[in-house]
Amino acid sequence: MRKINLLGATGSIGRQTLDVVRTHPEAFQLIAVSAGRNVDSMRAIIQEFKPLLVSVQTQGDALQLHSEFPFLKVLYGMEGLVEVATHEQGDIVVNAVMGSVGLVPTLQAIAAGKDIALANKETLVTAGHLVMDAAKKAGVKLIPVDSEHSAIFQALQGENFKNISKIILTASGGSFRDRTRDELKSVTVADALNHPNWSMGAKITIDSATLMNKGLEVIEAHWLFGLPYDQIDVIIHYESVIHSLVEFHDTSVMAQLGTPDMRLPIQYALTYPDRLPLHNAERLNLVEVAKLNFKSVDFDRFPLLRLAYEAGVAGGTLTTVLNAANEEAVQLFLQEKVTFLDIERIVEESLQHHTVIGNPDLATIQQIDQETRRAVLDRNLGS
Amino acid sequence: MRKINLLGATGSIGRQTLDVVRTHPEAFQLIAVSAGRNVDSMRAIIQEFKPLLVSVQTQGDALQLHSEFPFLKVLYGMEGLVEVATHEQGDIVVNAVMGSVGLVPTLQAIAAGKDIALANKETLVTAGHLVMDAAKKAGVKLIPVDSEHSAIFQALQGENFKNISKIILTASGGSFRDRTRDELKSVTVADALNHPNWSMGAKITIDSATLMNKGLEVIEAHWLFGLPYDQIDVIIHYESVIHSLVEFHDTSVMAQLGTPDMRLPIQYALTYPDRLPLHNAERLNLVEVAKLNFKSVDFDRFPLLRLAYEAGVAGGTLTTVLNAANEEAVQLFLQEKVTFLDIERIVEESLQHHTVIGNPDLATIQQIDQETRRAVLDRNLGS
Repeated sequence: MRKINLLGATGSIGRQTLDVVRTHPEAFQLIAVSAGRNVDSMRAIIQEFKPLLVSVQTQGDALQLHSEFPFLKVLYGMEGLVEVATHEQGDIVVNAVMGSVGLVPTLQAIAAGKDIALANKETLVTAGHLVMDAAKKAGVKLIPVDSEHSAIFQALQGENFKNISKIILTASGGSFRDRTRDELKSVTVADALNHPNWSMGAKITIDSATLMNKGLEVIEAHWLFGLPYDQIDVIIHYESVIHSLVEFHDTSVMAQLGTPDMRLPIQYALTYPDRLPLHNAERLNLVEVAKLNFKSVDFDRFPLLRLAYEAGVAGGTLTTVLNAANEEAVQLFLQEKVTFLDIERIVEESLQHHTVIGNPDLATIQQIDQETRRAVLDRNLGS
Repeated sequence: MRKINLLGATGSIGRQTLDVVRTHPEAFQLIAVSAGRNVDSMRAIIQEFKPLLVSVQTQGDALQLHSEFPFLKVLYGMEGLVEVATHEQGDIVVNAVMGSVGLVPTLQAIAAGKDIALANKETLVTAGHLVMDAAKKAGVKLIPVDSEHSAIFQALQGENFKNISKIILTASGGSFRDRTRDELKSVTVADALNHPNWSMGAKITIDSATLMNKGLEVIEAHWLFGLPYDQIDVIIHYESVIHSLVEFHDTSVMAQLGTPDMRLPIQYALTYPDRLPLHNAERLNLVEVAKLNFKSVDFDRFPLLRLAYEAGVAGGTLTTVLNAANEEAVQLFLQEKVTFLDIERIVEESLQHHTVIGNPDLATIQQIDQETRRAVLDRNLGS
């Protein structure tokens, strides 16, 4: 029985995690769970899964839930998030929150000896050196939930990391893969949220359209697999059937394939190194797919991917800036306060304004994160 | 240092094995080696690799070599083959002989505790139950060298066999994949030997054109991976880039990809579970490949594949008949004594004439093998 502390239960990954738990009651148990402002969903989760601890974003929502479930411990805010992550009965934390808010709970959970199923890529992007160091010291497993990193993680089973020559992340190209930069000037939020292959949250869908999502994944892969950036490639693969590949120095390439169903990497992270049947899932049928297409990625068409590589190579606080600026820019776009192409401009400006600090500690990262966000808002909302 | 007893050194797989040994003198040493009638090549092998024991097909050739290398032990025939396979200093046997002649040396090598790198698929097709039983009892590893089975073997590293839902062997479709059955009536030996993707020996190239090669591989996979035939699929994949795939019950599909270079599976069998750089090898470039195509296999177009499945399911001596009849039919075609489509007719007739004996011992298998070959020649060469 795998006992789970789930952070971010009402987002896309959180809901699919609950679906996995629901279909394998013999294998999984929900111990502690957090959500943001979606109290209705949390109420349903409490009734169905009977967790020992819940946390929501605001004190008001916490008081409301506590009045309805008087015997349940209900917390709120960052303190609640950390309590959920570190609940003593959980043995694995699924970190499915959005953005760099996932960092502190992850570090605390690692310190408490929990394995981490990591869907929150911003945690590694913004503080990969701290997280990997902590995981190594605590002897806990860090298992990726992103479909690309799960693919690589699966392809590396039974292999020796020293034999890797490179990893190849596949990118669908996102909602606007067939549009020119000129055509991007007037795209709407609704256009951007219409991803060709995957059904995901709004932030990641926008990040897919800019290829920043792939950029964040490149940085995530750098930390997870301990590889320099010149051993991490990205190729465009329209069908999202090959989820990523690993090339070894004997030229052998191992790949993981499947239908676009995030429940697979979620469940694999929970069953690793074993596997359980994935219920109600469609199987890959290559004959129906018929063709898999590949092409090189155009860094001029997708400048955020280039910026992500550059920030990754520079290191230090620059990836924190990259991520914070992007999070704010995407929010501004989703609120229709800036255009789609402004996202790139905002991230590039933020990187240019920043002087890199090497090997930052947690306090420095948090400070830079906040400063970057404030500067983005100052520059783009104006008075 | 991996010490190698090599059976069949002058064929396609044998020569590529020597190439692998040549490029990694720090890792591999040739201990004992056999060849057929190619004395010139054997002479060069002796001079370059300085094996402790060699064997050739005929007594005359053995005497000739012995006169040239008076301090070298030179044997011949089946006895020589067995001595090479079981040489006490070798710790792995590469079985790269063609046809069912590889069976007895393999069984003897297993009994002597040698790991087996198996390129000779006929060994498993004709006597899979005996070979797998013997390997299990002796506790030796049986590592496939066929590119498809090596792909599956690699995809299964770190995995539990109980989680496999099916394996999918890819087939290029061979030299005549774009021709109708009507167009096959008049094809020549030269046409058939022109394989679109792989450079291989004559027998296997003809078997690729009839898809009998894939049929033999299905039976080989059944034994190697312990799966029933309804969990072994074949799909047509023109580019031979994905060498085969494994689907697990969580719907995850693991695949091994690469350029068509047999040195990779050969070297992997020798380095397993580690890997070494493959020298002078081309790397897979998916952007250059651009498209991977898949389609279902047509059992009416390729009846030998259907017959192979049927023989496999029936089991017992029927796969021995399948293999022996096919070997003789392919030889007759290569000698231009029968047509290409006669290969199918000969195999089908042989299967129809045979009454299956279940769980046959080695003597029975050898008897059925010989009887089948004789009957094929009697029926097709006439008086």
